[in-house]
Amino acid sequence: MADNQETILLKIKEQGDLVRKLKAAKESNEKIQEEVAKLLALKAQLAPEDAAPQKFSLKTPKGTRDYNPQQMSLRNGVLDKIVAIFKRHGGECIDTPVFELKDVLTGKYGEDSKLIYDLKDQGGEILALRYDLTVPLARYLAMNKINTLKRYHIGKVYRRDNPAMTRGRYREFYQCDFDIAGQYDPMVPDAECLKVVTEILESLEIGQYVLKVNHRRLLDGMFEVCGVPADKFRTACSAVDKLDKSPWEEVRSEMINEKQISPDAADRIGEYVRLNGGVELVEKLLKDEKLSKTKAAVEGLEGVKLLLEYCELFGIKDKILFDLSLARGLDYYTGVIYEAVLTQPIKIGNEDQTVGSIAAGGRYDNLVGMFDSKHKQVPCVGLSIGVERIFSVMEAKLAAGVISVRTNDIDVYVASAQKNFLEERMKICAELWNAGIKTEQSYKKNPKMLNQLQHCEDNGIPIAVVLGESELKRGVVKVRNVTSRQEDEIPREKLVEELKARIAALSVKDVNGSA
Amino acid sequence: MADNQETILLKIKEQGDLVRKLKAAKESNEKIQEEVAKLLALKAQLAPEDAAPQKFSLKTPKGTRDYNPQQMSLRNGVLDKIVAIFKRHGGECIDTPVFELKDVLTGKYGEDSKLIYDLKDQGGEILALRYDLTVPLARYLAMNKINTLKRYHIGKVYRRDNPAMTRGRYREFYQCDFDIAGQYDPMVPDAECLKVVTEILESLEIGQYVLKVNHRRLLDGMFEVCGVPADKFRTACSAVDKLDKSPWEEVRSEMINEKQISPDAADRIGEYVRLNGGVELVEKLLKDEKLSKTKAAVEGLEGVKLLLEYCELFGIKDKILFDLSLARGLDYYTGVIYEAVLTQPIKIGNEDQTVGSIAAGGRYDNLVGMFDSKHKQVPCVGLSIGVERIFSVMEAKLAAGVISVRTNDIDVYVASAQKNFLEERMKICAELWNAGIKTEQSYKKNPKMLNQLQHCEDNGIPIAVVLGESELKRGVVKVRNVTSRQEDEIPREKLVEELKARIAALSVKDVNGSA
Repeated sequence: MADNQETILLKIKEQGDLVRKLKAAKESNEKIQEEVAKLLALKAQLAPEDAAPQKFSLKTPKGTRDYNPQQMSLRNGVLDKIVAIFKRHGGECIDTPVFELKDVLTGKYGEDSKLIYDLKDQGGEILALRYDLTVPLARYLAMNKINTLKRYHIGKVYRRDNPAMTRGRYREFYQCDFDIAGQYDPMVPDAECLKVVTEILESLEIGQYVLKVNHRRLLDGMFEVCGVPADKFRTACSAVDKLDKSPWEEVRSEMINEKQISPDAADRIGEYVRLNGGVELVEKLLKDEKLSKTKAAVEGLEGVKLLLEYCELFGIKDKILFDLSLARGLDYYTGVIYEAVLTQPIKIGNEDQTVGSIAAGGRYDNLVGMFDSKHKQVPCVGLSIGVERIFSVMEAKLAAGVISVRTNDIDVYVASAQKNFLEERMKICAELWNAGIKTEQSYKKNPKMLNQLQHCEDNGIPIAVVLGESELKRGVVKVRNVTSRQEDEIPREKLVEELKARIAALSVKDVNGSA
Repeated sequence: MADNQETILLKIKEQGDLVRKLKAAKESNEKIQEEVAKLLALKAQLAPEDAAPQKFSLKTPKGTRDYNPQQMSLRNGVLDKIVAIFKRHGGECIDTPVFELKDVLTGKYGEDSKLIYDLKDQGGEILALRYDLTVPLARYLAMNKINTLKRYHIGKVYRRDNPAMTRGRYREFYQCDFDIAGQYDPMVPDAECLKVVTEILESLEIGQYVLKVNHRRLLDGMFEVCGVPADKFRTACSAVDKLDKSPWEEVRSEMINEKQISPDAADRIGEYVRLNGGVELVEKLLKDEKLSKTKAAVEGLEGVKLLLEYCELFGIKDKILFDLSLARGLDYYTGVIYEAVLTQPIKIGNEDQTVGSIAAGGRYDNLVGMFDSKHKQVPCVGLSIGVERIFSVMEAKLAAGVISVRTNDIDVYVASAQKNFLEERMKICAELWNAGIKTEQSYKKNPKMLNQLQHCEDNGIPIAVVLGESELKRGVVKVRNVTSRQEDEIPREKLVEELKARIAALSVKDVNGSA
């Protein structure tokens, strides 16, 4: 290991050539083996063990991506705001493993189960990557016999879907969930979930949105009065769920041709799902000749009515739209369902794109019971923020220069105007770090002054401490305002105090600036 | 779906009994089939699709665990402190996918490659869960042709190891890494990594520790002068690495019997690896008859000498121990290596346990080049904080009552002294949430006063707003200090202002209390 990598690689090449030459010349096996041994010894010197050039394409797996510092800054900014609101509502944080026993996931996602990532059977348990954070929550509640919990969970989930990455659809993506578990009075936690969604979307300033609500019991009642057999409610639901992306004619045709729903029934469904409105629509439907005689529909409508009343008390009525076309694909919902969508397209790249759902959720009262040997239920209602889509919108804004972002928080850069100041810089850095000041310096012994100041400007570092020989002799250092380029001499022993004052002043300015 | 789950389950039981009775009575096949069809129809009504009782044991996969709210509070507290220090040093955050192309991981971990979790081949790419955050960083740098980066990364990694969970060893665990990539002057970024480790361990107040340092070049030189052949340097290294857990006699026997190192060479190694000290030991070894004539050893010793000088400038010399027995198992290190260990055992459960390494790292100058088709190197040095072990220590302290933790941040609970105050509570909650006040209420329409106050005490909520009919008529509400039980009447319209003042006063008290 006495030679560096390049020298070894050169020697390997030469030795390889020699071996090839001997083989071509049909030299004795003994001689060839001797030189091959030398070649192998050289290769063994390469650290780490195998330094053969890369043969595979250097990429992340299909449907996944790295987040660079700029993207992480955006992402962390978004998540910090979301978490602050979860905490404002008393959310407690939990975390679960990224994989579960395969059995835990089986039978929870209907048609989508084929999208689950399985782990290889390497001896031991059969495992799969989690598909969402809701089923792990239900497993957690049942396993620990917990009856009440208000929790948030931010983590990655995995779906072997066709990625559409420019629109924020990945195979690995963050979910950001808030759920309230417990036996409570109707619609009280449900309304709070809607309140949480509005607070989050408003704090993110992502654009105009509407929060659509509907009720699974109403959908069931609606399908019933339209003449759909009970065993086709779920499949009808997943057809209706496509109305946000496809026109009615397509959905109708899917119902009739793929789901074997009669054309008459489909047409009756078509009449209902074009309805949306507020409490007046609820009142109207409660008087609907057929729905009013169907237990499920009345339960659903009464639920929506109560929910809308609570939303008015919470001051969010104007954000809510009762919409009979909202269905939600997942099997496990049993009560209220909701979905927030942006009402205006967003420019991503050069195109106006419809972003679609940016938050969604609903009530699922039977899921926890599926994990309990005695089917003991823990009613739950929750929401999931579509953070990947929100990130995509923010990244588009960043690319368009509408917003900007710093990737580090450094306040002070310690620079030197002359050579041989590394030791002095190090002492000052340590002093500033120990005082909690976010500080950086060059890792070169003798960096150029221009490069050091350029680094400050490139990275938005507001203050530079500039060391010079004459100043140090007089017991002072220069403190430079990077933006204005104004420099002041500060007594060396007052440096920390002075910098703290300047940083405090900057953050006050920041707050005022952004207000 | 018109009936609830319980009713359906009851009907299924009855129908099942009927079918069994018919079969027992050997009724006609047609009749039995008719009733079986009814049974299946009932089962189909069970939402979601499969509600048969759980047959599998309800658990997380081997070697993994859930984090409950208390554990997450601890964990987030620890990570927040660590991230603050990474940012203090200008760290930028990145994230990478939890799985990589298998080829990315192949040939990077030596003997430990067998511990990699593979994903099942479901058609498409061959994937594996990441084993650490270092190889993904190297892949990221090479793929994006990045030459300089100071990044931190916190994420879960996966190893199919034998878990020892009480000691903080899991198959899924958090890593928490800080790395500096770039071509810089010797030991300048390396010394900063050591400074970062000391700042983190001190801010966590985890106990007395020592930060051992050594150098891979010195180890190579040492093996050379002891008579180990060059192709056995790495294997000798992994034997020496076991000295923190095993006595010298065992390591010696492994060297001789398993690694085919001569007893003479092993004994010479034994002389060196018992040495540790400070700069005086470096000076002594630089005069060592054999080492002083070996290029690798001299390079390593000069490196350690410079590093110790820089550590003195950073004011952390007293934490550093130059220790020739430190080897580090991983193949990819090329320069300085280090490891922080607690010097006192920690009581976990009823036992005193040696926690072992709680931070480690080193220089790896060749790893990025392994991903580059032209072997272009990006020198790197980094550190990894052993957060799982730190969590274990903190959890043990929590269990022993040495520290305490709140799982939510709620400041205000809105309670009602009488029935039928849900609407009023909701209006007040919305007002407080909109003012950014962390607020909770009961999700029951008519909760008992005692239960509401008990909830505040159980959860450490400091302030309760208590609504009563007579107060509301007079335009006031009661504000209660939960600890002192003192209640004051506050004009309804001044409520937000009053609560903000009380919360501000509490947080000042907190700061003073914890100082």
